[in-house]
Amino acid sequence: MTIFYALDLTGTIAFAMSGTLAALNKRLDPFGIFIIAFVTAIGGGTLRDVLIGRTPVGWMLDLHYVYVIIFATIFALIIRNYISYLSKTLFLFDTIGLGIFTIIGTEIGIQQGLHPVISIALGVTTATFGGVIRDILCNDIPVIFRKEIYASACLVGAIAFMISHHLSLSSNVAYIFTTSVVIAIRLIAVKYNISLPMIPPPIKKDKNS
Amino acid sequence: MTIFYALDLTGTIAFAMSGTLAALNKRLDPFGIFIIAFVTAIGGGTLRDVLIGRTPVGWMLDLHYVYVIIFATIFALIIRNYISYLSKTLFLFDTIGLGIFTIIGTEIGIQQGLHPVISIALGVTTATFGGVIRDILCNDIPVIFRKEIYASACLVGAIAFMISHHLSLSSNVAYIFTTSVVIAIRLIAVKYNISLPMIPPPIKKDKNS
Amino acid sequence: MTIFYALDLTGTIAFAMSGTLAALNKRLDPFGIFIIAFVTAIGGGTLRDVLIGRTPVGWMLDLHYVYVIIFATIFALIIRNYISYLSKTLFLFDTIGLGIFTIIGTEIGIQQGLHPVISIALGVTTATFGGVIRDILCNDIPVIFRKEIYASACLVGAIAFMISHHLSLSSNVAYIFTTSVVIAIRLIAVKYNISLPMIPPPIKKDKNS
Repeated sequence: MTIFYALDLTGTIAFAMSGTLAALNKRLDPFGIFIIAFVTAIGGGTLRDVLIGRTPVGWMLDLHYVYVIIFATIFALIIRNYISYLSKTLFLFDTIGLGIFTIIGTEIGIQQGLHPVISIALGVTTATFGGVIRDILCNDIPVIFRKEIYASACLVGAIAFMISHHLSLSSNVAYIFTTSVVIAIRLIAVKYNISLPMIPPPIKKDKNS
Repeated sequence: MTIFYALDLTGTIAFAMSGTLAALNKRLDPFGIFIIAFVTAIGGGTLRDVLIGRTPVGWMLDLHYVYVIIFATIFALIIRNYISYLSKTLFLFDTIGLGIFTIIGTEIGIQQGLHPVISIALGVTTATFGGVIRDILCNDIPVIFRKEIYASACLVGAIAFMISHHLSLSSNVAYIFTTSVVIAIRLIAVKYNISLPMIPPPIKKDKNS
Repeated sequence: MTIFYALDLTGTIAFAMSGTLAALNKRLDPFGIFIIAFVTAIGGGTLRDVLIGRTPVGWMLDLHYVYVIIFATIFALIIRNYISYLSKTLFLFDTIGLGIFTIIGTEIGIQQGLHPVISIALGVTTATFGGVIRDILCNDIPVIFRKEIYASACLVGAIAFMISHHLSLSSNVAYIFTTSVVIAIRLIAVKYNISLPMIPPPIKKDKNS
């Protein structure tokens, strides 16, 4: 097992745990909780695979993903009352997952011979759409569209990875560089409470005045 | 036409009728009602086909599905005020559909050479995601995540079918066995008002105390 | 560049602008706005491509779509306070887009050898599901299911295109005819405030009376 694969499974675990917690707060039943945890963890990669025609999609060909998601869901349920003590650990795991998923998606785009711009879009899709599908199933507007430097961190990470690729850096260097970029952006954004500037909605003309 | 195909169409009709009734209660227009009926009936199988790369997806290659859904939608609209007298019949149809769709999905997974665990997941997906997509389009949290032994009945049914397959039972015996398992679990769950135990959400610590 | 391709990009621009305005009203951040604009513009065609297995999906192979969507989003953000003065222009663009997307989807269905009924369904899907996905991401019930002659105009347009095809009319004549049908239906429907008749929901029996 390579370090990269281990990190991939780490990200999967983190995303499954975040899905479990979101589902718990919606008062879903245990089966619903597991489905939400599952789609949060594999949704982004599944959408990527479907869009590029890489089927059967990834998790169908490697049961380890299914097993770690089952494990992560049960673990998150058991420790749910102590999760506030672990919030920093979870945040770190989640951010590592974000960096890794960004790399995986971008690299698959490159392998498939897609244009760099599309490969970057695939990286961002892989990293963020699990959370988007989780929020749709939970009947919320996807949180990544509304606040926090989250998708933006993936976007910068994917661009960093693409640059590393064009500079022909070794894979390991590119992986560490990209993940560090994503983690650094999120840490700084959270620490200094930075978010993208909001664009005010159109001014409504009062037709009766 | 085989009995299996007839049962498949029966399930399609039942799912289209349940979609029609859900859409009526959301006050959608006739076109919207038909779309909801359609995706409820074919959504699970469509998602399955997309995930495993079996495209064009099933209903595009056999117009009978389209015709029975049109028929079922119109029929449900006509009898909508008498539906309460038919609720037991509809429940039975829906449950037969559930059993049949579970079998179809699981069997396609086996045929594609996927792992038994993934084949079971495909069976459950085929049976339940039509309803999930219906609820997303109607802007509800999917009902199967919240109550009733529904997806769980499919899960047990898919496992029962997989066991039948490994025991090399004849197809017809396996079909009858699986569908009976799904129907029995749902009937018992509804009759005795059984649902999965709820897991309480994390205890919120009051930070001000 | 053919006229048809130019019209396709026109429709893409119009749909991206309508997505931008919808996202602005939901107070999304700039990244979220762009994603909504993007899926509104390419969502219908992407779903079509995924359903028939035409992968990688269209916009991944032609960067012009990405560029015009970026341009349209930024343009819509800049002019957002003057959009009410442009509403008739936008409506016309949107309707042209609707007609063009209907044609593209139906034609691809024919090219793939699918049944006319399925090809028509693909045309309607291509034209309308971008807006459906936009509304799902914005946590609304899809507007096309609720009011206005919108999807119905696509349906009639797709049938008109199919008839043109069977009469072996030249492509350009068929394109102009179909787009005119879609535009005419929408204009008349909006001018005379026509919508599909609503079907009243089932009468609830009061069980206590």
